[in-house]
Amino acid sequence: MTDITGVLAKADTNLDASLERLFDLVRIPSISTDPAYKDACRKAAEWLVADLLGLGFTASVRDTPGHPMVVAHHEGATTEAPHVLFYGHYDVQPVDPLSLWETDPFTPSVRELSPGRKVITGRGTSDDKGQLMTFVEACRAHKETHGSLPCRVTVLFEGEEESGSPSLKPFLTANAKELKADYALVCDTGMWDSETPAISAGLRGLVGEEVVVTAADRDLHSGMFGGAAANPIHILSRILAGLHDETGRVTLDGFYDGVEETPTQIKAAWETLGQTAEKMLGEIGLAIPSGEEGRSVLELIWARPTAEVNGITGGYTGEGFKTVIASKASAKISFRLVGQQDPDAIRTAFRDYVRAHIPADCSVEFHEHGGSPAIQLPYDSSLLNTAKSALSDEWPKAAVIIGMGGSIPIVGDFQKMLGMESLLVGFGLSDDRIHSPNEKYDLQSFHKGIRSWVRILDALAGAR
Amino acid sequence: MTDITGVLAKADTNLDASLERLFDLVRIPSISTDPAYKDACRKAAEWLVADLLGLGFTASVRDTPGHPMVVAHHEGATTEAPHVLFYGHYDVQPVDPLSLWETDPFTPSVRELSPGRKVITGRGTSDDKGQLMTFVEACRAHKETHGSLPCRVTVLFEGEEESGSPSLKPFLTANAKELKADYALVCDTGMWDSETPAISAGLRGLVGEEVVVTAADRDLHSGMFGGAAANPIHILSRILAGLHDETGRVTLDGFYDGVEETPTQIKAAWETLGQTAEKMLGEIGLAIPSGEEGRSVLELIWARPTAEVNGITGGYTGEGFKTVIASKASAKISFRLVGQQDPDAIRTAFRDYVRAHIPADCSVEFHEHGGSPAIQLPYDSSLLNTAKSALSDEWPKAAVIIGMGGSIPIVGDFQKMLGMESLLVGFGLSDDRIHSPNEKYDLQSFHKGIRSWVRILDALAGAR
Repeated sequence: MTDITGVLAKADTNLDASLERLFDLVRIPSISTDPAYKDACRKAAEWLVADLLGLGFTASVRDTPGHPMVVAHHEGATTEAPHVLFYGHYDVQPVDPLSLWETDPFTPSVRELSPGRKVITGRGTSDDKGQLMTFVEACRAHKETHGSLPCRVTVLFEGEEESGSPSLKPFLTANAKELKADYALVCDTGMWDSETPAISAGLRGLVGEEVVVTAADRDLHSGMFGGAAANPIHILSRILAGLHDETGRVTLDGFYDGVEETPTQIKAAWETLGQTAEKMLGEIGLAIPSGEEGRSVLELIWARPTAEVNGITGGYTGEGFKTVIASKASAKISFRLVGQQDPDAIRTAFRDYVRAHIPADCSVEFHEHGGSPAIQLPYDSSLLNTAKSALSDEWPKAAVIIGMGGSIPIVGDFQKMLGMESLLVGFGLSDDRIHSPNEKYDLQSFHKGIRSWVRILDALAGAR
Repeated sequence: MTDITGVLAKADTNLDASLERLFDLVRIPSISTDPAYKDACRKAAEWLVADLLGLGFTASVRDTPGHPMVVAHHEGATTEAPHVLFYGHYDVQPVDPLSLWETDPFTPSVRELSPGRKVITGRGTSDDKGQLMTFVEACRAHKETHGSLPCRVTVLFEGEEESGSPSLKPFLTANAKELKADYALVCDTGMWDSETPAISAGLRGLVGEEVVVTAADRDLHSGMFGGAAANPIHILSRILAGLHDETGRVTLDGFYDGVEETPTQIKAAWETLGQTAEKMLGEIGLAIPSGEEGRSVLELIWARPTAEVNGITGGYTGEGFKTVIASKASAKISFRLVGQQDPDAIRTAFRDYVRAHIPADCSVEFHEHGGSPAIQLPYDSSLLNTAKSALSDEWPKAAVIIGMGGSIPIVGDFQKMLGMESLLVGFGLSDDRIHSPNEKYDLQSFHKGIRSWVRILDALAGAR
């Protein structure tokens, strides 16, 4: 380890310029799931390449069948230090409904949310542009202070994380040699709270499915056919209502195969965090946990699998009323997986269940939207302990090891395809409204996030 | 009765000009349910007033809090003949999804659907502009032949039929003296088949409800909250799935109060019509009746009450995938009523049922979209028998008395508020695709529909 006081000071004096750079990136509406924003996705990739080139990386935009990757390399000050691969994603979620945004999603600004608490507003500020820039700015502070980076660094930014990462596996396979490092650093997660940094050790997997039920070959007048012709909204409602039983368990055959009970000592550690349903759900206007009965909210989101309908549409949904029986109704459904649940088996069980509930004269189509198993990282490793210590030096409270409700499929791919252990550190907060209108990132998350990576890079270099 | 050969010949020679007038009316996009088309609705009313003035009616556009009414009067040739009120509606359904239309909905044309079968295409051609113009053109043929009408005629055209007729009752109340006639003639129904005219004697009532379920106060990331936070789409799906039991019966408390079994002789008469589930549902790509078990399709649509979801929406419904848990989900639901079912009681039972299934930390809102009881007209009256005979003279097969699945609330209002018996005659066919893309009206329906009204007006004048 070197003296990092100067590097931290540099991160502090750079802050205004760091913010300007983040603003530039947020202004690019890189919504990966909507084809209308294809050019914006490429523009975001090109912006990142230009910034990394300016930092002395060799960097390039790398085409894929979908949105491009950004890959960059920089040598470390010594060959003793480990080689790290840093991963983030430059794509963002759609912004609808736009009417609920208080500021333009692609015109970032710094606002005072409450006295003394400043936040950066805009789509992607938290997920994941603000987060990935904490690492880039940490590299800049090291480079501008010492003319070098403490570790050899490879950067991989993708542009399809919010739409199922279809190009990622083929890209890792084709570029395995170039991308293989000692450790992967992933910055797409959150803090425990605004004073307590967190390292995520368990991540749920994901299966995404879209189902389209078709009844009659045209929309019908409900007066002329109602009561005799099949209504696809009724069929779909029954199917979706049947996905859970009265205790909140998912009813699909074999759904819980590979799901193990969380070890008692881990549940006990989570209990010390003091989280309650009232606290967690109170923040979003709710009070009663809606999932499996008899489990804490942390267990529900960190260690239990789910089935959630993410969208549904059918028939007339405009203003006023239209007495129509629709020809089609459709829903988007995602399953969060834990333990050893098999994404393919769950997709098959879901499709079998749906098909069994479609009347003989109706039909159903499925569209696949990504699938990845859950990940459980070791609770005790040198990488994790080094990072835990570095984070605890920066923040008011010591870092905690937590689970995570979301899915970051790349972590499994890094493990399986490149044999790399991942470190999941991020600075998001639970009120960041990611995927929702009025997404924000705390200015403190950005600033101390940069300082955190300064410390972690330095600690990893010294740990060897 | 006079010699009507000349009037019928005039209707024939007028046909091309009659079509041009109908085209002018269809070109006006008078979609009543969408506020964007408010001016178009008024324009349609003004067009009708101008046309009726040209025919010698006293006619005017009459303002309401919603879209205006058209009211017109014309004396009859003798005071012996009955005074008839003719009702139709100039408003039309929305046209979405526009991409499914083969011709522009508001650019009418005549096309050959199959060899020898010509149809008029466009929104409103069948429901109800083409139908109401059959009556106007019949008046024109009488007037141009004899310089007079055989009966005294009052015309009432409304512009809110497709959006629940909110202004109708107050207008009838305020103008009861002006609108009261001996009989009401309503042209908004269909033929039994293309050779067999029909008079509708039973009409189902309608209750329209929109329900909006709110869970969290914002859209949530399904990874961060999935499995713990309430999902309004799940809640709504369970509510909608629970509206019917396994035998297809509606489960609301007291729903079947006031529903009587159809008399055996009426069911027997319907059986002679030779309708089957295979035939009726085969036309729309289906095969299996989906309503109450053990009843014929004619009974299901003419004599049984229903609950149908006409639209549902919630969460992300755009392209691709978004792992969101929505804050809100909503559905539009309509109930078709028969016999003595009470619209208010059914609305209350529905709301009570929904509220009982909303978790304590979630909320629900209701929006009312119209309500009217069912109507049963006498199966045997002088009005009905006169019209039956006149229709049978015009068409290849004798007219039949049928039930009707749809709702025409005005018929009940005419009965209750103005003490008038209604005659429901129309020339729509089951493949007219009303309320759907590619609505059409058979050229024969239009032409022989005009001739039918020529005969009915003449027969009514002679029947006294």
